[in-house]
Amino acid sequence: MATGENFTLLTDLYQLTMAHSYFREGKSELATFSLFIRSYPPNRGFFVAAGLRDVIDFLEALSFDAAALDYLKLLNLFTDDFLHFLSGLRFTGDVWALPEGRIFFPDEPVLEVTAPIIEAQLVETFIINQINLQSLIATKAARCVHAAAGRSLVDFALRRTQGTDAGMKVARASYIAGFAATSNVRAGERYGIPLAGTMAHSFVTSFEREIDAFRAYVASFPNNAILLIDTFDTLHGARLAVEVAKEMAARGQRLQGVRIDSGDLEQLAIAVRRVFDDAGLKEVKIIGSGGLDEYDLARFTDAKIPYDSYGVGTKMGVSADAPWSDMAYKIVEFGGRSVLKLSTGKESWPGKKQVFRGHDDQGQLSGDVVALRGEQIARAEPLLTPVLQAGKIAGGLPTLVESKSVCRDELDRLPEIYQAIVNPAHYPVQFSAGLKNLRDSIRKRALQTQ
Amino acid sequence: MATGENFTLLTDLYQLTMAHSYFREGKSELATFSLFIRSYPPNRGFFVAAGLRDVIDFLEALSFDAAALDYLKLLNLFTDDFLHFLSGLRFTGDVWALPEGRIFFPDEPVLEVTAPIIEAQLVETFIINQINLQSLIATKAARCVHAAAGRSLVDFALRRTQGTDAGMKVARASYIAGFAATSNVRAGERYGIPLAGTMAHSFVTSFEREIDAFRAYVASFPNNAILLIDTFDTLHGARLAVEVAKEMAARGQRLQGVRIDSGDLEQLAIAVRRVFDDAGLKEVKIIGSGGLDEYDLARFTDAKIPYDSYGVGTKMGVSADAPWSDMAYKIVEFGGRSVLKLSTGKESWPGKKQVFRGHDDQGQLSGDVVALRGEQIARAEPLLTPVLQAGKIAGGLPTLVESKSVCRDELDRLPEIYQAIVNPAHYPVQFSAGLKNLRDSIRKRALQTQ
Repeated sequence: MATGENFTLLTDLYQLTMAHSYFREGKSELATFSLFIRSYPPNRGFFVAAGLRDVIDFLEALSFDAAALDYLKLLNLFTDDFLHFLSGLRFTGDVWALPEGRIFFPDEPVLEVTAPIIEAQLVETFIINQINLQSLIATKAARCVHAAAGRSLVDFALRRTQGTDAGMKVARASYIAGFAATSNVRAGERYGIPLAGTMAHSFVTSFEREIDAFRAYVASFPNNAILLIDTFDTLHGARLAVEVAKEMAARGQRLQGVRIDSGDLEQLAIAVRRVFDDAGLKEVKIIGSGGLDEYDLARFTDAKIPYDSYGVGTKMGVSADAPWSDMAYKIVEFGGRSVLKLSTGKESWPGKKQVFRGHDDQGQLSGDVVALRGEQIARAEPLLTPVLQAGKIAGGLPTLVESKSVCRDELDRLPEIYQAIVNPAHYPVQFSAGLKNLRDSIRKRALQTQ
Repeated sequence: MATGENFTLLTDLYQLTMAHSYFREGKSELATFSLFIRSYPPNRGFFVAAGLRDVIDFLEALSFDAAALDYLKLLNLFTDDFLHFLSGLRFTGDVWALPEGRIFFPDEPVLEVTAPIIEAQLVETFIINQINLQSLIATKAARCVHAAAGRSLVDFALRRTQGTDAGMKVARASYIAGFAATSNVRAGERYGIPLAGTMAHSFVTSFEREIDAFRAYVASFPNNAILLIDTFDTLHGARLAVEVAKEMAARGQRLQGVRIDSGDLEQLAIAVRRVFDDAGLKEVKIIGSGGLDEYDLARFTDAKIPYDSYGVGTKMGVSADAPWSDMAYKIVEFGGRSVLKLSTGKESWPGKKQVFRGHDDQGQLSGDVVALRGEQIARAEPLLTPVLQAGKIAGGLPTLVESKSVCRDELDRLPEIYQAIVNPAHYPVQFSAGLKNLRDSIRKRALQTQ
């Protein structure tokens, strides 16, 4: 990772106990694991892939340092020769993955790892941790962007994201999904995401009078001040902001906008717009915030509520209506033999795979086929590409802005019925004949063998 | 932080633009901010405080390094003399807080910061980020512990927690709240939390036959093996585990337990228990996992389902039914003047505060009073204690095990009606006459002044 933090121990204990058992049994065959989401959370019709970059950084840096080995020794679970083996362990496998910003659907692999089984198993926890979070957030953010219908969105989530890493990754994933900026200064520094911000209620109340706070703020930021007008009474605050805007105009400056963060956000926006329009200040923008999500934004869009942009925080930042996905990382091949799991409700598809995407004559997405990696599907685009080969980066990685552009382009091609905010249709995903035949034969063999 | 990561920039841009404006205005008065949760999420009757230790570490380390200052300069928002001021900025304030592991209720401050306004404002984002997350998770975990009625719980959440920091803090907060162990190896290393784990389905499927996987695993871990028996058919898996347990008994070893992770967890546990009991293996434990939360655990407890312990993952690890709280950090005093915010639905209580907790004759919690810090409430325990004075630690910090013990002790004193898993009663929280009078007078003045 960029910070040099070593996340090798950020794994489940059973990954290490299984590794120990594999080591003892001399099992070093190549295994392939497939990462996918089993089912749609409520109101989701697609997922946006995000988090791959962090997975690549993690895999490249995988290494047990001396402190980690000392700690593992203290657990009295592992033999010295296993710990010695761990001290030399690096990730030497291959990774195929869907590029960040592309969209995917349940049962489609977004990433496949092929590596000696100990390596492939050990990295499961971190891979799910990052791709589950970032894809969840990118998906939620893409829904907000869709609902806002062209109005720009800023990530305000940092304070209520689930921890510091989530704060960074929410800024990153929402930017990929089409947000214009973030309030998170560290994400600006780390990822180059544009920053945006306004002022807080505490700023207003720290002055004796609301208008004193407004005047002080525009004195500091004459070119880009957004005044928060709901600390006491929103319409009164709007009239004070008009007064300040006129003072600014007399100095050749321009008030950029005002923000409303509480109360009846629909009626207040209409009334505040009228206050500014009546004062001849049509160019002053109105920013809405305060517990907004895609359901609110869609309602405001439908009702033509005159907001110019939105700050979107908590509910996007934790994906409040779907704070987790049923993402799994399952073994599909071991030592050249395809395998699957038959646990009730959790049956998996065996074998190394490829996802093929079809487009219609207008370039719109028309359906996917999940196939074995060696299969060819006519007139369809293969989506998974090699990103690591023998542990080394297989090609140039896209920049964040490139991933954002990939996402915009693909969402523009995804028909509206799959992007509906409530009860979207389910996109057609088929399984190739080769994959179905393999599954049937493996299932039969597995049940006979046990 | 222990890793040396600098989180000073992990703040919202507006904290810095407001700071710039305060700096320009020469506003350096002391401000007090109060951190509290406004309302109960669904089915919550109390909150467990957690996250203070990370806040203290952050405040002690607060400092803009050269890279941060270079980045801020590039934004073209700030003057050189403000950036120079930031280069020397350290946290010099006082912090009063509720110790970790204590419980609290809506509207009660869990932490109050008094510092020059720029410092007090700048640290808002990080403080909420950590205490919101860790308190949410500790609360959810305490509900799981209550529902499990004495059966031990292990944190299995890491893979689906929202990022790496959440993974660590979920292990930490759930341990404070009464979990026995975590699967997160790094949390074991960092925090000294006991580790636990079993095996994955991939381990089983990587062998030709299920029983080969079981035999290999117990060969590696003869003293503490827990076999996962649901990969193909749970009852068949149980019978294979009996076979392996008998082989172990013949070698003088003992199978510790089996885990069931899918299917009808209630009926399977009963049937699996019978398989082991019939084989004379009453001591083999049954561990349940797979999407469990406190609602499931309470149902299993009521129905006397024979699980001995549980792995609790995703739903605890993201607090799935309440993934955020309405936690706010509000200015309550500035330059010796008490202040408040009147925004619709977000009105705050002015002034520095103390929370007093009453107990009945049996030592049970009987009601709290939120008062001004200088007030005395007879026969009630003041809960907030000074943790930082002039930026330095004011006393010894409790260990994690001490905080766990504090939590256990206090939850034992919280009457059952407030701990109900569904629709708990609301604990009585009153506001002192001093606080009410102050609020009334400030409100009147605020509305007159604007």
